[in-house]
Amino acid sequence: MTTAASGARPDKLGVLGGMGPLATVDFLRKLIALTPAAADDQHIPVIVTSEPQIPPRPAARLDPANPSPLPALLARRDFLVGAGARAIAMPCNTAHFWYDEVTAGLAIPFLHIVDAVIAVLAKRGLGGATVGLIGTRATLEGRLYEAPLTEKGFRCLLPAETVNVELVFPGIKLVKQNKPAEAGRLFRQAAESLLDKGAAVVVLACTEVPVGLSDADPWVAAHCLDPNEALARACVDWAMAARKQAGLA
Amino acid sequence: MTTAASGARPDKLGVLGGMGPLATVDFLRKLIALTPAAADDQHIPVIVTSEPQIPPRPAARLDPANPSPLPALLARRDFLVGAGARAIAMPCNTAHFWYDEVTAGLAIPFLHIVDAVIAVLAKRGLGGATVGLIGTRATLEGRLYEAPLTEKGFRCLLPAETVNVELVFPGIKLVKQNKPAEAGRLFRQAAESLLDKGAAVVVLACTEVPVGLSDADPWVAAHCLDPNEALARACVDWAMAARKQAGLA
Repeated sequence: MTTAASGARPDKLGVLGGMGPLATVDFLRKLIALTPAAADDQHIPVIVTSEPQIPPRPAARLDPANPSPLPALLARRDFLVGAGARAIAMPCNTAHFWYDEVTAGLAIPFLHIVDAVIAVLAKRGLGGATVGLIGTRATLEGRLYEAPLTEKGFRCLLPAETVNVELVFPGIKLVKQNKPAEAGRLFRQAAESLLDKGAAVVVLACTEVPVGLSDADPWVAAHCLDPNEALARACVDWAMAARKQAGLA
Repeated sequence: MTTAASGARPDKLGVLGGMGPLATVDFLRKLIALTPAAADDQHIPVIVTSEPQIPPRPAARLDPANPSPLPALLARRDFLVGAGARAIAMPCNTAHFWYDEVTAGLAIPFLHIVDAVIAVLAKRGLGGATVGLIGTRATLEGRLYEAPLTEKGFRCLLPAETVNVELVFPGIKLVKQNKPAEAGRLFRQAAESLLDKGAAVVVLACTEVPVGLSDADPWVAAHCLDPNEALARACVDWAMAARKQAGLA
């Protein structure tokens, strides 16, 4: 099995997915929607591993006694490199806590989901704004977004503990059970609580959240920022630049 | 790069996709929705190639002077086998014209989309019914569905030429341009014309069509059959059987 078997393309994207599977599909749909293409062959060639048998990321973050996802992440990363990927994206926020280890020794770009969000905030003219954050306990307590956002001059607002326990965490569980509509109602209330407290925008910092809070809803588009979409946007930008550099565009 | 790198699982599914990319995402979404799972790791491990740089299937069927998709299909098939897939599914109807060549010498199951549709028709108690067909010209003229359905005692109804030219083919093009809502309105009219002529059910025999005619619409669920969903159902059945056989279930 060689890389050439499925075609060597400068814009071939590897997707390290399955965390969870529905978030991966949501990312792929956004990638397609954001790609300027009028026919099949103008779309970005993608290899996806959505093999969700990866030790849970939040549990591993919260208690080091739990199994680490790192070996599974590294195996999938190497699989994607072997499959000819020229860049990798990972549509899961919490997994980015292992970003440094997963990218160690990697010769191709690995697009970071928080960098993608910061780029969209800047494009929306929200530099230095107050940003609400919805996510897993691991993402919030580990300051995955808060640390880089604060460093770049943003102010971060987190949900009250009751909002997390009654709305956000049950909503994430509902998405994993494939009940996005029920989850959406909980997420909406959580986002509203942050906007009421003065957030200019709410970052949906767990890839399960935008599955419930659809970007097709104008309220969501106006008040929320979807890291899965931001990551897809960064991937499209990368692919178009890679094509141009290779004389393909 | 070895198979073991991303884990050896008896239920690992290879998806030969990208024809088009949105139809692949639609298939993956249905696969997840149909899988009995309450947590990430209960979902089916999937490897996807969605590299849409494959010569167009309808054009190759209609005129042998056009480039054949077969070399690209074989390369992707071999890639999936090398990635450890234990079965393969291809969410594209027209590509199944190359089914015999693509499965030649293959040691793992390659689930056929028409077999999956016939299984669903039987489950719905529609044995021997009159079945309307919507699809590309290549699928209809090549009798991809009509030949096996007629052999099994069904009667097939095809759209009038004006319906194809004014509704079906423009609709397929709109889906490829990522305009599913506009496409859906055209497909709905085409399906109604077949129901008016006596079809008991309309098979949406091009994977772009269900992207426009959503299964969330009760009218679609009542009157149409989605081969992409039927294929996903066949894959879930295969995966659950594979788990059981391996003592994983």
